[in-house]
Amino acid sequence: MKLSARNVFSGTVSGITKGAVNAEVTLTLTGGTPVVAVVTNASVDSLGLAVGTEACAIIKASSVIIGTDLHDARVSARNIMCGTVAKVVEGPVSTEVDVEIGGGNTISAVITHGSARNLGIKAGGHACALFKASSVILGVS
Amino acid sequence: MKLSARNVFSGTVSGITKGAVNAEVTLTLTGGTPVVAVVTNASVDSLGLAVGTEACAIIKASSVIIGTDLHDARVSARNIMCGTVAKVVEGPVSTEVDVEIGGGNTISAVITHGSARNLGIKAGGHACALFKASSVILGVS
Amino acid sequence: MKLSARNVFSGTVSGITKGAVNAEVTLTLTGGTPVVAVVTNASVDSLGLAVGTEACAIIKASSVIIGTDLHDARVSARNIMCGTVAKVVEGPVSTEVDVEIGGGNTISAVITHGSARNLGIKAGGHACALFKASSVILGVS
Repeated sequence: MKLSARNVFSGTVSGITKGAVNAEVTLTLTGGTPVVAVVTNASVDSLGLAVGTEACAIIKASSVIIGTDLHDARVSARNIMCGTVAKVVEGPVSTEVDVEIGGGNTISAVITHGSARNLGIKAGGHACALFKASSVILGVS
Repeated sequence: MKLSARNVFSGTVSGITKGAVNAEVTLTLTGGTPVVAVVTNASVDSLGLAVGTEACAIIKASSVIIGTDLHDARVSARNIMCGTVAKVVEGPVSTEVDVEIGGGNTISAVITHGSARNLGIKAGGHACALFKASSVILGVS
Repeated sequence: MKLSARNVFSGTVSGITKGAVNAEVTLTLTGGTPVVAVVTNASVDSLGLAVGTEACAIIKASSVIIGTDLHDARVSARNIMCGTVAKVVEGPVSTEVDVEIGGGNTISAVITHGSARNLGIKAGGHACALFKASSVILGVS
């Protein structure tokens, strides 16, 4: 299956914590970056997820926030990937920002045109992509 | 690929409107229910989406809001599916609510425990599931 | 209309910018705080939104990120509301954090247990709630 979600990162499950409804699953990407996902327990079971399972993390571009000057900021978003802005596609309402985060991966975000302008986002600049664990869908082949 | 996203509905693309960055794609599910998705133009192109393409709409349970007494409600969320609560799984913070929406489909939502209690959600009751077009990921085989 | 979404804030539409697919709608809450929403053009039309329309902004708790020490941080999330943590409900995976943001409003966030611990979130502390414009649903009576 091919997905419209712009961000699909491959890795290996390195940790699972189950609660009553949800489970927190940590995926270690090729390259070492961890991605934390919160999915339902039922999904962990139906996908047969366990430590060592190869899986991918899928994140829709509209779930990604772009930040700059985050040095001292502390946010609850479990996933923060920083790098260099590779491309900016501007629209009247929305702007797409692609950030190269190393290891051959690029993360795409769709933010408002106003935010992109206020942050001064442009190709070649430094930016961080943030997304919540609850925005991550896991897939297994 | 198998996905952790609890809600995967099959259908056929019945409309596409492209903007500068995003496109609105309407999928008509088997059974006739329309699902509206907003995805990036780049995804429409890479998936080869066109009117008539078979595709599925993928929605993470945590993106779904549960509502009751929506008769007079007018909300911007483009997707509203109503039916009967089939199952409720309670946790200390989150509660999973599964709603049978006809055509053999069930939609799962993860809402807060407090909301489920306030709405009086229980198996057998009537409820509606709402989700934004921007929460929908499209997949093609 | 009763919704599971924990955050429903009343206000008046103070601005609308339309694109080809999406529109950016600014709502000024009672008290003066602006909330920015991105919804589809079709929703703007079907709800009859115009400057001066009374509407409410609906945000699911799971779409809200909690941050501290955000003084110099610059993020694309258009909506940032700061205040005092009123309540924390802990689960094994998820934690609910309620922040009083003035004007009689409280915003609820569901974040991971790990984040709440790392940020040292506790009742009485200062915290900010961030959410993307695309996470906001608009409703009219």
